[in-house]
Amino acid sequence: MIRTMVITKEDRLVLDAPIDDILARIDLKWYWIDFSKPTIEERDSLQTFGFHPLAIEDCLHLKQRPKVDYYDHYQFYVMSGLYHKTLKSHEIGAFLSSTMLVTFHTLPHVEIDEIWDNLASNQETPRKDPKWILYKIIDKMVDASFPHLENIEEQLNRLESKSSRSYQIQTLMDELFVVRRKLSHIRHFAVPMRELIDRMIHSEKLNHNEEERRHYQDIHDHLVKLTGMIEASREITSDIRDNYLSINSNRMNTVMMTLTVITTIFMPLTFIVGIYGMNFQNMPELKWQYGYFLVLGVMALLGSAMYLLFKKKGWFDE
Amino acid sequence: MIRTMVITKEDRLVLDAPIDDILARIDLKWYWIDFSKPTIEERDSLQTFGFHPLAIEDCLHLKQRPKVDYYDHYQFYVMSGLYHKTLKSHEIGAFLSSTMLVTFHTLPHVEIDEIWDNLASNQETPRKDPKWILYKIIDKMVDASFPHLENIEEQLNRLESKSSRSYQIQTLMDELFVVRRKLSHIRHFAVPMRELIDRMIHSEKLNHNEEERRHYQDIHDHLVKLTGMIEASREITSDIRDNYLSINSNRMNTVMMTLTVITTIFMPLTFIVGIYGMNFQNMPELKWQYGYFLVLGVMALLGSAMYLLFKKKGWFDE
Amino acid sequence: MIRTMVITKEDRLVLDAPIDDILARIDLKWYWIDFSKPTIEERDSLQTFGFHPLAIEDCLHLKQRPKVDYYDHYQFYVMSGLYHKTLKSHEIGAFLSSTMLVTFHTLPHVEIDEIWDNLASNQETPRKDPKWILYKIIDKMVDASFPHLENIEEQLNRLESKSSRSYQIQTLMDELFVVRRKLSHIRHFAVPMRELIDRMIHSEKLNHNEEERRHYQDIHDHLVKLTGMIEASREITSDIRDNYLSINSNRMNTVMMTLTVITTIFMPLTFIVGIYGMNFQNMPELKWQYGYFLVLGVMALLGSAMYLLFKKKGWFDE
Amino acid sequence: MIRTMVITKEDRLVLDAPIDDILARIDLKWYWIDFSKPTIEERDSLQTFGFHPLAIEDCLHLKQRPKVDYYDHYQFYVMSGLYHKTLKSHEIGAFLSSTMLVTFHTLPHVEIDEIWDNLASNQETPRKDPKWILYKIIDKMVDASFPHLENIEEQLNRLESKSSRSYQIQTLMDELFVVRRKLSHIRHFAVPMRELIDRMIHSEKLNHNEEERRHYQDIHDHLVKLTGMIEASREITSDIRDNYLSINSNRMNTVMMTLTVITTIFMPLTFIVGIYGMNFQNMPELKWQYGYFLVLGVMALLGSAMYLLFKKKGWFDE
Amino acid sequence: MIRTMVITKEDRLVLDAPIDDILARIDLKWYWIDFSKPTIEERDSLQTFGFHPLAIEDCLHLKQRPKVDYYDHYQFYVMSGLYHKTLKSHEIGAFLSSTMLVTFHTLPHVEIDEIWDNLASNQETPRKDPKWILYKIIDKMVDASFPHLENIEEQLNRLESKSSRSYQIQTLMDELFVVRRKLSHIRHFAVPMRELIDRMIHSEKLNHNEEERRHYQDIHDHLVKLTGMIEASREITSDIRDNYLSINSNRMNTVMMTLTVITTIFMPLTFIVGIYGMNFQNMPELKWQYGYFLVLGVMALLGSAMYLLFKKKGWFDE
Repeated sequence: MIRTMVITKEDRLVLDAPIDDILARIDLKWYWIDFSKPTIEERDSLQTFGFHPLAIEDCLHLKQRPKVDYYDHYQFYVMSGLYHKTLKSHEIGAFLSSTMLVTFHTLPHVEIDEIWDNLASNQETPRKDPKWILYKIIDKMVDASFPHLENIEEQLNRLESKSSRSYQIQTLMDELFVVRRKLSHIRHFAVPMRELIDRMIHSEKLNHNEEERRHYQDIHDHLVKLTGMIEASREITSDIRDNYLSINSNRMNTVMMTLTVITTIFMPLTFIVGIYGMNFQNMPELKWQYGYFLVLGVMALLGSAMYLLFKKKGWFDE
Repeated sequence: MIRTMVITKEDRLVLDAPIDDILARIDLKWYWIDFSKPTIEERDSLQTFGFHPLAIEDCLHLKQRPKVDYYDHYQFYVMSGLYHKTLKSHEIGAFLSSTMLVTFHTLPHVEIDEIWDNLASNQETPRKDPKWILYKIIDKMVDASFPHLENIEEQLNRLESKSSRSYQIQTLMDELFVVRRKLSHIRHFAVPMRELIDRMIHSEKLNHNEEERRHYQDIHDHLVKLTGMIEASREITSDIRDNYLSINSNRMNTVMMTLTVITTIFMPLTFIVGIYGMNFQNMPELKWQYGYFLVLGVMALLGSAMYLLFKKKGWFDE
Repeated sequence: MIRTMVITKEDRLVLDAPIDDILARIDLKWYWIDFSKPTIEERDSLQTFGFHPLAIEDCLHLKQRPKVDYYDHYQFYVMSGLYHKTLKSHEIGAFLSSTMLVTFHTLPHVEIDEIWDNLASNQETPRKDPKWILYKIIDKMVDASFPHLENIEEQLNRLESKSSRSYQIQTLMDELFVVRRKLSHIRHFAVPMRELIDRMIHSEKLNHNEEERRHYQDIHDHLVKLTGMIEASREITSDIRDNYLSINSNRMNTVMMTLTVITTIFMPLTFIVGIYGMNFQNMPELKWQYGYFLVLGVMALLGSAMYLLFKKKGWFDE
Repeated sequence: MIRTMVITKEDRLVLDAPIDDILARIDLKWYWIDFSKPTIEERDSLQTFGFHPLAIEDCLHLKQRPKVDYYDHYQFYVMSGLYHKTLKSHEIGAFLSSTMLVTFHTLPHVEIDEIWDNLASNQETPRKDPKWILYKIIDKMVDASFPHLENIEEQLNRLESKSSRSYQIQTLMDELFVVRRKLSHIRHFAVPMRELIDRMIHSEKLNHNEEERRHYQDIHDHLVKLTGMIEASREITSDIRDNYLSINSNRMNTVMMTLTVITTIFMPLTFIVGIYGMNFQNMPELKWQYGYFLVLGVMALLGSAMYLLFKKKGWFDE
Repeated sequence: MIRTMVITKEDRLVLDAPIDDILARIDLKWYWIDFSKPTIEERDSLQTFGFHPLAIEDCLHLKQRPKVDYYDHYQFYVMSGLYHKTLKSHEIGAFLSSTMLVTFHTLPHVEIDEIWDNLASNQETPRKDPKWILYKIIDKMVDASFPHLENIEEQLNRLESKSSRSYQIQTLMDELFVVRRKLSHIRHFAVPMRELIDRMIHSEKLNHNEEERRHYQDIHDHLVKLTGMIEASREITSDIRDNYLSINSNRMNTVMMTLTVITTIFMPLTFIVGIYGMNFQNMPELKWQYGYFLVLGVMALLGSAMYLLFKKKGWFDE
């Protein structure tokens, strides 16, 4: 879908004018054209603006990290945002000049839709400019990532307590794995964006005034906080996993000890009763008056002795 | 709760004047207003000072790392402190000018309370200034974190010795987990604060004199020491865990060997006695005069042979 | 194989002229000589150009990381590319001046072949120059590495889902090992190339104009993206492995518990029936009317009691 | 203990003069006052010198990393040294001017004692100066740490060979744990000292001449070597531990296989002989002439078949 | 052993002149004195040159990392080389001026011997100078380390394939351990040397001309390649170990499952046949006509049921 928004010199807002018309008009103050999940045919329209071929190629293939390229009459941005459905980082291309903003993204972004709808229905719109819209897009996309991270933090709090109760462990591991994937996605959005914003703040070519710089600094601070939260959460996932593995190794130990104690006590006893179950004709003990009771006594002694031995070795302390 | 402290030009200390009064007065030297765990309504008062909207938003949402922002007539600080109950790092916003200090924190901080009480009851107060109070707050908050870390170090010393006795292992793991969480919290307080102080010392906009710089340098040195102690403690937790896992793996080995030795010796013997417990009518051995003793002898030989075999393989060395 | 391409001052394209002829001609605009998997004899031809001995030695032995060396009349590049068959990084030497490009590689590179074939059959060729060809070679080699990485990402997606189904684990481990080797190879290509390109962009000696710099910046951006993708994939391999190990440890636990429960319940019971299988003449219980049923009852009780004990201990929860 | 050493303008050496006397004298060239494990009362004497309160506080609490602070008439150093008994890093405070050295340490240091004794009994002493003594203290403390590290390296060499013999593993782990603690202590001494010396060499305020700079550079080189040795040793401890864990895991495997082979072969056989030990009145096989031998044959076949199956599966290869 | 080589002003080569003679002569162009594994007495000769005491001490104790110190009339180098027998890094001290090279090493180095022999028997020697010899020594020592690393890479290739066949695991672990030690030794040679060469290239005091700089740059490039190869090999050792541990853990799982299946099937059956082996006088089932066959049938059913249960649980899938 391609949607267009034009502000004429008389501060009038015109929506959905065809691109060719817009490029031909002289009486416009600024315009915003948004390529949202464009079809193959719609993508070709990008050629009509006369942008640099490298920038267009970057838009269409988007194999870049966030960056800003300076051309003579415009700047070309690659930004990234979290796609709200998959939580994966997704690139957005943008061409910016004082009279033009062209945004290009192969997935629909709810944050951009929101800004569009707001501008399209707002009296204030003619007083804004393309620079401000770009700032707003970045701001929204960064703010939109915080709730995801807060969800993760809550989930980790739940997992921490579960971990100590130590059950349904397969589930625990699977949840941790998913959380780590999510954290990884958010980090792959946040770190390059932080670097981009940092470069934008310190770039002399961008001609930001003090107020604009302050706004970008604010976004930068949020991104620094965000990456700090991501690292803290990653650390917790590692700790939960290590903790679980320790506990599991310990339970295994207890189980093995139980098995070994039982086997070590009963196997020799079973062997003894086996002996007196043999059918040899000449087995003198079998004829003793108290042979049976003697054997029972010997076995009771043997069993107790082994039990005491294990006890002394500290196997039941745990 | 909002509390106010005003020093008039005549060096008089006035407590708990309403905010609107304070802002209207001309005869004041400086004032300090502290928003301590303010209610929703109290928060709105922050709007009356005419601060920059971004700074106010940062105060209310506090998604920042510690930082200092420079505005025309004041500076805006975000600092962090350990909240003494949860040991979690908690942000504190502060607006500072030569005549004003406004502090804002959504949790009550005992360190700030202490400074307030001290100033409110002290003859010396008129000779202080907002800059000095801010320094004091940071100083107290940093110093307050040392006892926590010293507790952790003592706890780790105890755990180290426990670890070598190797019992109550689940408890050990849980304690380590808690210690690591605490260390993580303190680090998330100390590292960003260290960076903030560092930036404050080297900032030219802050106009610190030599003596003030020296004081902040001292706080910085404490924070460097603190982060060093945190890293050392983290390392010890890892080492204790690794050590425990090695010991556990070793115990498991011993247990498995015991089990295997017992099984390997007694299972074949039990099989043999089982053979002569069968009820076939034609089993020539059963009628031999010394069949029973022969079998006993064979089994004694077999058992001893296997015992010696394991001994030779070194299974009892451990 | 040595192949040569000469553009004369009259913009004529001459192919496969002998090297000595080329060096002797005065009427040429520029030439490209490609040593593709040269024989031992062909390698000697490299001596006839009068290059610096260190550069020639580097060409023949190629123990370098990618670099650029500046000589008086030419530059010497060592670049690396992925050899498409083994996916291993492979060095390519290149001597560049305004009228000359000499490339040297001991393995055939399809990317270079493609450029050669394109130039050899293209009307546009006389308008290109050696600098542009070198750029094209690097560009192709970098772009050629993306499909490999995308294959790996798809493979990891498959493995992730397999991991949760948790079967054919040896295969999983082997695949992971292979993937990590491949990622390692690509990284050993991408990181040094990124550094080389970075140095080329910022080198003042190379005299790149704005447009050339932009093209190299584009390659650099691709390489930054590539290394980011490599790191993300490596992280996923680690996570899959850790996840698998946790799951495996958990299955082991379940298996051991099953074994222990069975053994603990049946070993004492088997011992009891063994007792009444003994052949002592004087075993009073054997003559009791309901001795048999009594023993069966006792054993049923004992078995149930142990089952309940394990149940209470939570061994069946998992 | 407080000890004092004064060199008068006539190059006379006076020992153990009271502090107040020293501060009052005008005819002295330089003096050294050493607070070695001072009592609470002795600590108060530190106040009489008129040092900056922050420096005194640092001395008394010593929560600093090594550093140098510049005051108008003197410098304040915090250095650290290994306390020879515990091998723990321990801070030493020092105030230095051209006529004064005041050292303060809450534990006695043999290295300082040595320098003191040497100076107190040496004819050359009047030709030295406080700067030289400070250099000598640092030099001695750094050199004193090498023998500790060499001991550790020897110990690791022993452990490496033990590890391959793989016995007394609990001891091995405990030794490794102790070694890692020691290495950690030495590192917490060496790294901050290295940073301090580095800062001292490059500080312009310290006015070192070429020769002094060379001496400190020499200490710096030793510390760089020391930290390199520490890292190498740490790496070896990790490798020994990993190696041991692999070996242990392998032994466990062998043990488990032995157990499983024995159980799998003898359990079915024991079951078979159990069948013919039953006392049913109607069991036709029991009356067969060669039933017994038939069963023996079947069992021999079964046992051999299982043995061959395991052999084919490769369980005895290891 | 001390050996000397003198070039007189008339370009004559004099070998093995005594040191005192050399220092006394005026007609020499340059000389090289090599202390190769000197005896205690020979070491004393080092004092006769008038070098700085710190440099001599460094030579004798060699606790330095590679470095270059600048003195008024000479430079002092500490270089390191791999000692070919132990593969351990070993320091070499060298004093260099325009007319002098004094090298000092407590172990004999074949690389230095080779250069010496070459110079002693070569017509070209008078045209060389001490600077060139030093370069040659460093060059040879760096080149000599490549074959060691290539051996390791081949060994790792072999181990990788072995690892997949997964046998003789103790051997595999021991080989990996040795490889890691070797890699560690080479790295402790390569990294500090790389830093030294880097400092030499950028040092202004050394007055290298363009050609010399190029030669050192070449050595630097080799060392960068070398450290890259070392890191790649280290990574492979970790991957092989992790891979092996996963495989081992998996085999253990299979073994445990086999054990558990056998035990779980046969233990209850053995218990049943044990029941009917009891000798109670009143056991009605024993007298049933088809009791025996009934029990056999029940046991066949039970065994099959358990087998199917395990099959359904997926225990045989692996």
